[in-house]
Amino acid sequence: MRPGEQLTVVLHQTRSTDNLGAVARIMANFGFSRLILSEPVLKSIEGAEKLAVKSDFVLKGMEVASDLSEALKDCVYAVGTTSRTQLKGRETLMPEEAIRRLAEQSARGRVALVFGGEQRGMSDEDLARCTDVLAIPTAAVQPSMNLAQSSAVLLYLCHRQSLTPTPVAEDEAPGAKLGTLGALAKRMREVMLRADFLNPQAPQHVLNELEQTLMRARLTQREAELWLNAFKHLDRAVTRGAST
Amino acid sequence: MRPGEQLTVVLHQTRSTDNLGAVARIMANFGFSRLILSEPVLKSIEGAEKLAVKSDFVLKGMEVASDLSEALKDCVYAVGTTSRTQLKGRETLMPEEAIRRLAEQSARGRVALVFGGEQRGMSDEDLARCTDVLAIPTAAVQPSMNLAQSSAVLLYLCHRQSLTPTPVAEDEAPGAKLGTLGALAKRMREVMLRADFLNPQAPQHVLNELEQTLMRARLTQREAELWLNAFKHLDRAVTRGAST
Repeated sequence: MRPGEQLTVVLHQTRSTDNLGAVARIMANFGFSRLILSEPVLKSIEGAEKLAVKSDFVLKGMEVASDLSEALKDCVYAVGTTSRTQLKGRETLMPEEAIRRLAEQSARGRVALVFGGEQRGMSDEDLARCTDVLAIPTAAVQPSMNLAQSSAVLLYLCHRQSLTPTPVAEDEAPGAKLGTLGALAKRMREVMLRADFLNPQAPQHVLNELEQTLMRARLTQREAELWLNAFKHLDRAVTRGAST
Repeated sequence: MRPGEQLTVVLHQTRSTDNLGAVARIMANFGFSRLILSEPVLKSIEGAEKLAVKSDFVLKGMEVASDLSEALKDCVYAVGTTSRTQLKGRETLMPEEAIRRLAEQSARGRVALVFGGEQRGMSDEDLARCTDVLAIPTAAVQPSMNLAQSSAVLLYLCHRQSLTPTPVAEDEAPGAKLGTLGALAKRMREVMLRADFLNPQAPQHVLNELEQTLMRARLTQREAELWLNAFKHLDRAVTRGAST
């Protein structure tokens, strides 16, 4: 991973300007600069610059996204962070393994590291937007880490990973953007509901499972567009069938 | 290293109760509990408990030392932290290597990780009290890390090191306590000044070099006491010589 080029830090539902400022500083410490606030809970970022010592360029370049899908739309890979080590149907990675994958996937396009809000962290639904999930191992006496400190640990590992010479990746086709995969998931949901495959009371669980398999498949952008196109056609066909 | 048993975190000349509280929390996160404030600049620790979420036991057990030598007196090994990568006559270690040594030396007795004050970090003189020195590699745009965040990075590595099974150390003789080595250095200084070996205007530089070689030698407590005893005798002999 080339520092500051491919990595995007996403703060989802952040509440504290102190944390925002501290994250900006640690990003500057480790040579990263692309920051996106997703669905921010704070009303203004005033006060963040106090802790963002010599890193106001990170705050100035920061983007705001209305939700997590929007924040991740141009990334090919995203790791969500959680303090929960048991997740239904998903493996939680150790930080070193997750950061290794982040570096590897950065050969395909932009990659994101996503942090949840201070109060509840990331929900299962938020984590379903991410390709992988990591948990920093902590002690039972106090398992919950401060946001600024967990970002310090993970961005340090990203920085170290980028300092370690890695074999040059062969020319990979551009990876599927999560925005395209998100549009695909949305289309799949509509079609599968219409086709009575998904339970309309609780469609998300099964849909998430399907989505995850596509994420794991490391689709290229072209393949994702093919899938999307296929489901557009299926949608039309199913809709026609329903109206006859 | 068994978490929470052998590792002492020393905060030298800390000014901010926010940082103190954040360090207590990250210690609890990673299973460490022994904290010493060395030569603290803050007047009271009031306010620290606000950030020390579920880690007040760390603050309650905290000790205060008048200076760094006092703080380190019962440790056999100490790593000082610095943001300066160029140090006169000393190698600065990468974090992973320093933490590996910390874990290895913990077979001999208590070990310490020392953080400098917020304004100037650790002086050469402070670092001379430490067996080794480490620097977290950072980007040129903002090389200076926040204390709470550098402690997060390093205590994470300590925690990970302790999770990695290491070969059981053979029964080592108890390592020399830095308190004994400090007493030895003091005695050496007096004797060598009296013997006109050291320049009375600037004795410390040469003395630090000598001290470092003894620290590198991994003396046992018995050997350090032998050295100390030898210099006591030398002192008496030199003083006798001077008075005749």
